Amino acid sequence: MKNKLKIAVVGATGLVGRTMLRILEEREFPVVDLILLSSPKGAGSVIAFRGVDYTVDAISEDSFESVDIALFSAGKDVSVKYALIAAAKGCVVIDNGSYWRMHKKVPLIVPEVNPDALIGHHGIIANPNCSTIQLVVALKPIHRTFGIKRMIVSTYQSISGAGQKGINQLNDEILGKEPAERVSKLPIAYNTVFHSITDSDGNSEEEIKMTNEPRKIFNDFDLKISVTCVRLPILGGHGESVNIETEKPTTVEELSELLNNSAGVTVIDDPVNSIYPTPLMSKDKDDVFVGRIRKDNSIENGFNLWIVADNIRKGAATNAVQIAELVLEKNLFEFERADFNN
Amino acid sequence: MKNKLKIAVVGATGLVGRTMLRILEEREFPVVDLILLSSPKGAGSVIAFRGVDYTVDAISEDSFESVDIALFSAGKDVSVKYALIAAAKGCVVIDNGSYWRMHKKVPLIVPEVNPDALIGHHGIIANPNCSTIQLVVALKPIHRTFGIKRMIVSTYQSISGAGQKGINQLNDEILGKEPAERVSKLPIAYNTVFHSITDSDGNSEEEIKMTNEPRKIFNDFDLKISVTCVRLPILGGHGESVNIETEKPTTVEELSELLNNSAGVTVIDDPVNSIYPTPLMSKDKDDVFVGRIRKDNSIENGFNLWIVADNIRKGAATNAVQIAELVLEKNLFEFERADFNN
Repeated sequence: MKNKLKIAVVGATGLVGRTMLRILEEREFPVVDLILLSSPKGAGSVIAFRGVDYTVDAISEDSFESVDIALFSAGKDVSVKYALIAAAKGCVVIDNGSYWRMHKKVPLIVPEVNPDALIGHHGIIANPNCSTIQLVVALKPIHRTFGIKRMIVSTYQSISGAGQKGINQLNDEILGKEPAERVSKLPIAYNTVFHSITDSDGNSEEEIKMTNEPRKIFNDFDLKISVTCVRLPILGGHGESVNIETEKPTTVEELSELLNNSAGVTVIDDPVNSIYPTPLMSKDKDDVFVGRIRKDNSIENGFNLWIVADNIRKGAATNAVQIAELVLEKNLFEFERADFNN
Repeated sequence: MKNKLKIAVVGATGLVGRTMLRILEEREFPVVDLILLSSPKGAGSVIAFRGVDYTVDAISEDSFESVDIALFSAGKDVSVKYALIAAAKGCVVIDNGSYWRMHKKVPLIVPEVNPDALIGHHGIIANPNCSTIQLVVALKPIHRTFGIKRMIVSTYQSISGAGQKGINQLNDEILGKEPAERVSKLPIAYNTVFHSITDSDGNSEEEIKMTNEPRKIFNDFDLKISVTCVRLPILGGHGESVNIETEKPTTVEELSELLNNSAGVTVIDDPVNSIYPTPLMSKDKDDVFVGRIRKDNSIENGFNLWIVADNIRKGAATNAVQIAELVLEKNLFEFERADFNN
């Protein structure tokens, strides 16, 4: 069984890539060899890992020789091309991008939720969207125990979901400066904006992801979901106002106890004393925080919840490293090659 | 018919009070005599109205002699005590506070929505909560034409809803300063916070208002509503993510046309080109803006809407002045005295 791994981080200079490195350190992942990769633009940067400086290389077809696990957090084009190349060489790819997530030969994994879906993977494993991850970690115990008929979600997302450029635009605007680069045409500071709208029904990319991904992760393709995704002028942490209708009756107390005993979830729910999850308090934490668990009296089995997590950690980097830990623990380095074009 | 009015503004030094004065100017309300009132703390301040300086007086039992209309935007104690005193003297009180709103002898008015409820008033008229006003202006045409079975609302509210102190706390925090005064125990900058939680089911004051007030305004006490209210680090403008289930079937196109032809509503809905309502664009405008009108495929007659308005103007000051205009237009200065304690 492998326990000394050669790891590649693709997109190492980005916000998520750098956080992945920090989390590999924190969780003492057994890295013995580390390859940092980026676009030619980022190549040459030096990034420390466990006190040793590593130089970032430009990604190429030869980057994945004898690499055990590659953590990808790069643009779509990189994921599409190099995930295939890496997997063909026997490297297990854990991709944080959206391209592979709904592919039928690619498992979409949240370790607390559907670890078994990893068995029989074909070398490419997808990390879900940030706002999906915190949603399914919090809702899985409820889905399993009481069933969920329908959910209506409105998100309160940090602009850090658009990467360092998003943070830079917000910071420039707060300082009254013309932003050097923009992720949003409309101002972010003191405002709310939407993600790019893509489908003919007027839904944003993010809303489509949050509608499709939970169904795949829960393996419940009848799950009814309606989502509105909103970006806020906050530097980190996503909030979600979630209304659910359960199949079976339950109570606020039962839900609270159930969630409190669930992996990866912390219930913080004393709002009378201003004790509840917020984006700021979620910073640098790996758990998903749930509060404001309330009965919705407008329908028989209705409940409201407020779900918060650090979108860069549990929403991206931590979840990817947890998948790598699962690959290690279950010894899933060997896999049957697949034709991803069919 | 009266057309030269003596007007009192109670709470004249506050954020809403000052905005009321600006709106009385803008709309050329026929004020011939103006009394500015506040607590003893604010008395002595000088505020210009139509180029003339007025000194603010401390409110007293004698403040309302021969006043035709008093616009109140002061604390609860002031509303409770002085609205009764003013009305007993024949002054029509339009109160922006929450105390009188659900009183059965007090009409709760949004001029575009339920102007007829003003007929037969007893001297105290209530202005709804800011987030209620924009919700009912946008939903009234839908409620009337297609019926609304259930609505689920998540709000994105400016901290200016807590008045100048809220803005001050946010500004201090953005500058990295310890706030001189606080409306929120938790930080507002780069964060989301909730309003004070008051009921045993864990709902905030704001959520209770938004559940009860639309029912009274629509005169539909069976209307099913579930609300989550969230405060954001933005200086003005409230957003609302609203999911509705209509009684009768309709389409996005029909809803869009209906709203576009409704008083007080502007539809802005070209999100592919980043054209949609935002808090920043609503600033200093009196309309309610609706965008992102989408079918919710998770239920038969489901739709999502995004509703934005300037919370200090249409959400408070403008609506109050519009009620005053309605009193003038319908000549409702005379009223039958009521015992508000019964």
